[in-house]
Amino acid sequence: MPELRKDPIIGRWVIISTERGKRPDDYKREKKQAKSSSFCPFCEGNEDKTPPEVLAYRDPQTKPNTPGWKIRVVPNKFPALQIEGELGKSAVGIYDMMRGIGAHEVLIESPWHDKKLYELSLDHIEKIFWALRDRSIDLNKDSRFKYILIFKNWGEEAGASLEHSHMQLIATPIIPKRAMEELSGAEFHYKLKERCIFCDIIRQELEFEKRVVFTNEHFIAIAPYASRFPFETWVLPLKHVSSFEKTESKWFLSLAEIMQHVLGRLDEVLDSPPFNFIIHTAPCKTPDLEYYHWHIEIMPKLTRVAGFEWGSGFYINPTPPEDAAKMIREWGRVKNGESV
Amino acid sequence: MPELRKDPIIGRWVIISTERGKRPDDYKREKKQAKSSSFCPFCEGNEDKTPPEVLAYRDPQTKPNTPGWKIRVVPNKFPALQIEGELGKSAVGIYDMMRGIGAHEVLIESPWHDKKLYELSLDHIEKIFWALRDRSIDLNKDSRFKYILIFKNWGEEAGASLEHSHMQLIATPIIPKRAMEELSGAEFHYKLKERCIFCDIIRQELEFEKRVVFTNEHFIAIAPYASRFPFETWVLPLKHVSSFEKTESKWFLSLAEIMQHVLGRLDEVLDSPPFNFIIHTAPCKTPDLEYYHWHIEIMPKLTRVAGFEWGSGFYINPTPPEDAAKMIREWGRVKNGESV
Repeated sequence: MPELRKDPIIGRWVIISTERGKRPDDYKREKKQAKSSSFCPFCEGNEDKTPPEVLAYRDPQTKPNTPGWKIRVVPNKFPALQIEGELGKSAVGIYDMMRGIGAHEVLIESPWHDKKLYELSLDHIEKIFWALRDRSIDLNKDSRFKYILIFKNWGEEAGASLEHSHMQLIATPIIPKRAMEELSGAEFHYKLKERCIFCDIIRQELEFEKRVVFTNEHFIAIAPYASRFPFETWVLPLKHVSSFEKTESKWFLSLAEIMQHVLGRLDEVLDSPPFNFIIHTAPCKTPDLEYYHWHIEIMPKLTRVAGFEWGSGFYINPTPPEDAAKMIREWGRVKNGESV
Repeated sequence: MPELRKDPIIGRWVIISTERGKRPDDYKREKKQAKSSSFCPFCEGNEDKTPPEVLAYRDPQTKPNTPGWKIRVVPNKFPALQIEGELGKSAVGIYDMMRGIGAHEVLIESPWHDKKLYELSLDHIEKIFWALRDRSIDLNKDSRFKYILIFKNWGEEAGASLEHSHMQLIATPIIPKRAMEELSGAEFHYKLKERCIFCDIIRQELEFEKRVVFTNEHFIAIAPYASRFPFETWVLPLKHVSSFEKTESKWFLSLAEIMQHVLGRLDEVLDSPPFNFIIHTAPCKTPDLEYYHWHIEIMPKLTRVAGFEWGSGFYINPTPPEDAAKMIREWGRVKNGESV
């Protein structure tokens, strides 16, 4: 059983795998193995190589865990947290811990091994977000869970251990540190001004224009003012809503479109960069929050850095977000030989 | 002139290079160039290839910026922040920024290209920490600077752009986010209990023993209870002191010894891993703080992860710190064929 342990100084919770702890040699092997395997458990026909599906969008004439699906959600075969059990919160001397209870699921985006997310049809991408919503709503019901972390690692350097395009959902019994910081920062702003800070940002960016990457009916993509990473891009719903799973149904097509557009452009402009994105949303079981606004943060992994930054919280970004937004926005015109 | 920009939600300051902004192609080139250059500006004889030294421990018969030195501190040739100018704090719409004023220096640890830090003599390592103290005291005098960030990137994957072993000092006009969090977390603990949380941690670890990596007269090395990374190791002075540069002179030999020992063991146990370390210290110009305790955090870079972790603040560590501490502590005995 993994453990959740709390850093006593800054209050960050960390998952520690206490059972099958990795030894130094495991890290060497991990390094060498990368890319070597040719068998893919996520491909159609290999359904029995994953734990049984918890959700699938599939041809109604097909049976669960057989071919015929378009999108499939399965428990992670090597989960960071375990689904069964009580939290067992306890003190260990001056420290705090609880048992590593949680859910860890994988959403396989399509049966096709080589398709990137943005290369799927608009309709297919929309359904992926529907599936994420379905799973969020379901995991929200478990009284032990406080937060649903939805993210995508793409490319080995961004931490993807399998090539076949997928996303992950981790339901945790604590609120991750970054989510907590955003919530309290946004609440502080709201108390001062009676306005959502994300709505303020959207208004400012629409007016200033230079950091806007793309907009459509219900969403906006921006290069944030204080981007940590080159070409960091945030996607936000234009209208205020605090939780991803409470997003109005009619907005999902817009969401699919903006994600397809932004990820496609990043892939072209930056020559298929590894990247991560994370859905930032309100904690489980909260009412609609006036002060928080869900959004997606996309972080291409371009710099070798990642060194002292995460230890200091001090980032150096060599590409101004205004330039990044311009290059992504105007890529098509540049490609077609037009002057910019 | 670079800009310092503040994230309006969580209050993190980021350096944005606005002038010579990197374009997509620069990142591709950066990737390819790694390791290709054979010329080293940090080697003896190439003193004219760096900006003029601000400090050197050298043979008294030699002139500045010529051979004959053992340790050399020079301004970074490509500084993240610029030394000249006023801060020019201003609002940009709803955002806050200031000009990227600061110091960015490089400490070249020795004239020898292939020597790792721990391979230097104890006396030499002690002098390196003296040099860091000298520079800290000097940079502290500048009224514009609020924090001196001292860190080391070793190995390409940890962000080192040059092979020749070195450290960096960045003096910033703001307090980095992580330092701010530690300060307020520690202050909160002190207000509750009238005790320094780091002193509490040291007491607890000495009693529990299993996470202690090494101790000597004045320092302790531990694998922290909620380690984010496998084999993460913290080095703390046993007696309370809030700022690195206020450390008693007679402790420096102990500091050199513990760093030599810990870095040497990590290098052996983990087969020369890339790593970062950061000196966590009190802000500039603060009086002695009862609640803060300076220390060094060493983070080997073993996992390919680094994916969603820094975006979520949620870490998964596959090696329990108790196991890591044991393996480092007992390495010599294992190597010599003794059972553990």
